[in-house]
Amino acid sequence: MKARVFVTLKPGVLDPQGKAIHHALEGLGFSGVQDVRAGKLIELELADGTSDIAIEDMCRKLLANTVIENFRIERLETAA
Amino acid sequence: MKARVFVTLKPGVLDPQGKAIHHALEGLGFSGVQDVRAGKLIELELADGTSDIAIEDMCRKLLANTVIENFRIERLETAA
Repeated sequence: MKARVFVTLKPGVLDPQGKAIHHALEGLGFSGVQDVRAGKLIELELADGTSDIAIEDMCRKLLANTVIENFRIERLETAA
Repeated sequence: MKARVFVTLKPGVLDPQGKAIHHALEGLGFSGVQDVRAGKLIELELADGTSDIAIEDMCRKLLANTVIENFRIERLETAA
């Protein structure tokens, strides 16, 4: 099965990468961009039957820094 | 309106970051992880009425390197 983990900075945490992208978009002439936040997307190919709890555990222990980041898990195929 | 852009490496492109995450997950004792691919998630806060074509243009010109990366756009709120 596949799972996707979306890791985003919590609101209020400074995001220099997002700021740089925002600035670059304006420099390229794109108007109407009000804010940009950069995050991570991690695609996992897991053994069938991997539990949601196991995936959440991976996020808490490695994939996300829960002090400054939120994470969201999306399962693409459910276990048989 | 908000839009999310998901940038992922094309299949076949080497992903050292994903490999490192995979290795670290195994080191932490998580079994059953078959593959990990790392990508980017960019959240845009845009003026209402920004067209899909404009967002796609941003992706092609700045957010994604279309030689090695695919991108997918998700609009969260449609223009009024």
